[in-house]
This record gives sequence, C-alpha cells and structure tokens, in this order.
Amino acid sequence: MASINTIEFKDGKLCLLDQRKLPKLFSIFECQNYRDVEFAIKDMVVRGAPAIGVAGAYGLVLAASEFIELPKEEFLEQMKESVNVIGNSRPTAVNLMWAVKRMEAIIEENKEKSNVDIYKALLAEANTIEKEDLETNKAIARHGNEIVPENATILTHCNTGALATVGYGTALGVIREAYYSGKNIRVFVDETRPRLQGAKLTAWELVQEGIPATLIPDSVAPVLIRDGKIDLIIVGADRVASNGDTANKIGTYMLSQIAKDFNVPFYIAAPISTIDFEIASGEEIVIEERDSMEITHINGVRIAPEGIEVYNPAFDVTPNSNITGIITEKGIIRQPYSLNLAKLRQIQGC
Amino acid sequence: MASINTIEFKDGKLCLLDQRKLPKLFSIFECQNYRDVEFAIKDMVVRGAPAIGVAGAYGLVLAASEFIELPKEEFLEQMKESVNVIGNSRPTAVNLMWAVKRMEAIIEENKEKSNVDIYKALLAEANTIEKEDLETNKAIARHGNEIVPENATILTHCNTGALATVGYGTALGVIREAYYSGKNIRVFVDETRPRLQGAKLTAWELVQEGIPATLIPDSVAPVLIRDGKIDLIIVGADRVASNGDTANKIGTYMLSQIAKDFNVPFYIAAPISTIDFEIASGEEIVIEERDSMEITHINGVRIAPEGIEVYNPAFDVTPNSNITGIITEKGIIRQPYSLNLAKLRQIQGC
Repeated sequence: MASINTIEFKDGKLCLLDQRKLPKLFSIFECQNYRDVEFAIKDMVVRGAPAIGVAGAYGLVLAASEFIELPKEEFLEQMKESVNVIGNSRPTAVNLMWAVKRMEAIIEENKEKSNVDIYKALLAEANTIEKEDLETNKAIARHGNEIVPENATILTHCNTGALATVGYGTALGVIREAYYSGKNIRVFVDETRPRLQGAKLTAWELVQEGIPATLIPDSVAPVLIRDGKIDLIIVGADRVASNGDTANKIGTYMLSQIAKDFNVPFYIAAPISTIDFEIASGEEIVIEERDSMEITHINGVRIAPEGIEVYNPAFDVTPNSNITGIITEKGIIRQPYSLNLAKLRQIQGC
Repeated sequence: MASINTIEFKDGKLCLLDQRKLPKLFSIFECQNYRDVEFAIKDMVVRGAPAIGVAGAYGLVLAASEFIELPKEEFLEQMKESVNVIGNSRPTAVNLMWAVKRMEAIIEENKEKSNVDIYKALLAEANTIEKEDLETNKAIARHGNEIVPENATILTHCNTGALATVGYGTALGVIREAYYSGKNIRVFVDETRPRLQGAKLTAWELVQEGIPATLIPDSVAPVLIRDGKIDLIIVGADRVASNGDTANKIGTYMLSQIAKDFNVPFYIAAPISTIDFEIASGEEIVIEERDSMEITHINGVRIAPEGIEVYNPAFDVTPNSNITGIITEKGIIRQPYSLNLAKLRQIQGC
C-alpha cells in the first residue's frame, strides 16, 4: 500500500501535501502560522472533512506558539480570535468545528496554567485528534467491508481517501479494505466537477494501490446505475444532520436519487465527528458557494465568456430517505436515523 | 440578435466557424476537400446534429468538385467512397445520415448526366438542406414557445443554438423565441462535461443575446430541479427512435430522470430529420465513445494520473417515458410516441 503523508506537524510547522497541484506535482505547503492554515483550508491546499479537522487543530497549535510570549490575557484573546478564524475558514464541514471545539475546551481547561503549558496541552490534543483519525478510518473500513459483496463494482464520488484524511480514508478506506481483503472489486470514480478531485486525487490513489478503476464524467454515473452496472455506491460526508440528511460534495444528491430509483445501495462513510447533533435536518446546513472562477476558468485559462453568471455550490444535501446506511467507526447506522443516531450519541456521549 | 455564421459555402470552399476555439478565438476552418470535412466533423470543429448534417452535405459537394475531371465510372466510384466516409464520420447523429442519403439520392437520380451537372445538382441540394434548416428551426421555435410560461426558468444542456445548426437553434431556438416574444425568462445552462459546450458555446450565445443566464456544473442541475427552481427543461437530440427514445449529449438522461421524479416538464427540440424511423427503440442506437484524453487532459494539460482507465460515452439515451414532448417543425409530439411519430411519418412521407 502506498504511503501518503497528507498532514505532518514537524519542527514547529504544519506541512501539508499541496493537493491543488496533484497528481502532477508533489509539493509541500508549509504553514508557519495560523493564518497560513486558514489560507490552506480556504484555498483547498488541504481538503476533505477529516483532514481539514486535523489541519485546523494544528492551526491552533501554531497560534499558541506564535502568541506564547504575550501576557496571559492577551494570549487568551489572540487564541479566541484564532479559534474564530480557523473555525470559520470553511462553513460546511463540521469536523473542522468539532476539532476546533476540542481545542477550545483544552484552552478553557488549562487557562490558569502558563502559556507554555497551554501550548503543550494543545499540541498533545492535536496529536490525539490526528492519531484517532487513522484509527477511526480503519474501523470505518472494517465495518464498511461487511456490505461490499465479492466481485462488486463500486461507484464513488470526489476524494475520500488518504488525501482527505490523515490516512486510509473514509469511503475510499472501505474500498481499500475490500480490495486488501481479497475481494475482486472494481471502481468507477466520478471526475467531480468543478475541482476534479475524483480525476486528480481519487484516480491517483487508486492507480497507486493498483485497484482496478475507471474514471468517468459525473453525468455518466446515472446511466451506469440505470443499466445495472453499479452494485454499490459509497461516498463521504462533510456534515450529517441528526436525522441523517447528509451534506457532501456537489453531485452526491444526484447519485443518491438515481440509486434510489433503481434500488442500488447508497452508503455514506463518515466518522462520528461528521455528525452535527446540533441540527435537526439538512435544511439547517449552510452550503458554501465558491468562486465563479472554478467554473469559468480551467488551469487559469478562461473557457466561459465574460459576462456569464455562475452558481457554484460546493456541496449538496442528500435526504436521509435516499441513504441505505451511514458507515461509522462504531458500525453501520440505518433507518430510522433520528432514533439510531440519537442512540449512538448517548453511547458516545457526544 | 447577434448573427453567427456557423457554416458558409463560398468560393468553392466550406468555411466553418472553428467551435473548438470558442469563445476565446473566432477562427474559420476552411475545408478544401471532403477529407477536411470528415476531420472537421470527427474533431468537432463543427458539432450539433443539424450543423453536422449540413456540413456533411457540403462535404459531398466538395467531393464532386474534386473528382469532376474523372471518367464517369471512376467519378461515381469516388462519390460512393465519399458518401461512406462522410456518412460514418460520427455514428450517433442521424441528421448526418439523413443529409448524406438525400445527397446520395441526387447522385442516383442524375447519374446519367455529366459530372458537372451532378455537381450542380448536389450544390443545389446542399443549399436547400441549409436553407431548410433555418426555416425548420424557426418553426420549432414557434411551436416550442407555446409551452414556455411567462417568467419561466428554463434549464438546458450542451449547445443547441445557432452554433449547432445553420442558425437560431433547436432547444436554444425555443429559448430565443421565448425571449424575443417578450417573456421574462431566465436560463440555467449546464457546462456539459467533458467538452464544455454549455460553458463555451451556449453561455456565449446567451451573453451575446443578452438573455439572463447562469452557468452551472452538470451535477448542480438535479438539486435545482428538486428544489423547484426549474420550470421547464429543453434539450436537443442527436437521434430519436420510432418510439421516442432519444439519444442526446451525455448528461441528458440524468436530467430527464430527476425531472420525472419531481414532475418538471422535460422537452426534446429537434427537426424531423433527427427521427430515425428505421429503429424501433433506443436500444438500437450506437453510442459513440470518444478519446479518453477528453477526460484525462484539459487544455492540453494532463490532470488525471497515468494508468487510469476512462469511459467516455458522448451520448446517452433517454427513455420515451421520461419525455413530456418532442418539439418538431410540425408541432409538438406527445405520448404515445410510437403512434404519434408513425402518424407524423405518414404525413411527412419520410
């Protein structure tokens, strides 16, 4: 299995594999301070809900390091500001807020201690979040593998692999696990307009692993689903509401709806940190709209005419009724989601 | 209204507006002989089913001019070869075959005459096909306008405008007519991966005309349809079977299926020459697969990793059950299509 270092904190810097340049170039984007991390999240140097969460946590470690010499009160003031900036760098992915809240709790718990002690506690917590992410993904992969039939053709969307997480991946982690457990699977991957994470990132991970895979334009998937060429669809999530409604990369809803029409199982693979128990349904999820240049330009070259309006939502919401199951590190959650997610919350205490 | 010269036969050459370079560059691709026309159709210098038909007809005029000095038997032999080459330059669009058959009939009718007379007869027929195309589109537009409500938001896919035809367009012709008849419409246009005809061509035509329009990635359309933001969908066709099943640009099926799920009217706009009465259903339609480089490269730059497989069908087939109506120059055909298209055939004698 190829080893991909998406995120590494070393020598007091956060080193991110620059995903804007893959698969052409392997370059490391070094974050020296929390503003660099904010930029890296906004500009999608790092992307994928779990990876953004871990990067955000280290962003606050960098902030603590930056302000460590300040008097306590100013230090805490600056940390509060950093928490706001990092927490708001992308609006839809809830793992980011979840990670930031964990870091905020560490600041609160340790606020009577020295700045250096707070820094150390924050670094330890970020390390824990990072370590947990990999373990979580492995658990998701094991549970997910149970629903992958032998000789399955699996459709996936966007990138949910090692590049979207600390390692292994969520939906792509399930695919990895199925492949390494010896199942004779093959994968169709949507290119995922506009940023082409499927074509650039998932295709690359699949080629690296030697997993048989075919790249398709997003609009080809519905025909394959209709024609019985897809046994199973697995995608990731950026935010899951208490009732199971799921925000994920634009194009996910389309797949879920066609899958429902043709009785193809449609699964979400996501860590429990992706579940937002604070919101009742998908209607409350803020959908990020991104720059129109993602549509009007390709590789920096304008393709659409001047003067055309653009609508570029980064995500869409799939209703719980279109979802066969949500694969978490604690097992697969099924209908009724409101009830079963509430039970999970009780067990987890989240 | 902007005037767009997609196709012009002058000074013994076929001048095509090079659609591979729009909207950035306006350049004319000159076809000196029928092999140039074959290349122009294959490489999509000219595209859109009706425009391909007209270009194909002029391709045979060029062939006649090229071989005019040969002895009659050799001339007819070369014309037969040209008919084959042009007729097979793209497999899905039936207008091309229809136009080529009309030209073939002219050769047959005039085969006892001189080569010069055959050339003249072919030129006259190509001129007629060209002239008819514009009249046909105007008639489609008038009939189509009847089903466009005041204040309608219309979704369209790919390019079916002046660039896809001799002028005015089919689906986009209906949109033009609605706009010029004073209806307060607005348009959403899918970018239409992989070749982005929506972003490059339709968006450009709409901006030229001043019709309010918004460009979206293909996968955004299903969300807009679900959320009640689309009143009407109108697309073109590359081939319609006797039962109404319709082959059109990849992504059309997806729109039709989501539209059906949410009761949004879904119309095909196409000349009768697009109807293939020889085939019973969409199952008999050959779907062209195009070069994988359309997916792996953008603007000549590789974006997907080496070694990834690609599936790149140019078209998909929408079942008749998903189609609200087929807007032709003779009026709107509705369910049951087998019966109503057969009636149309009888009236038309096609």
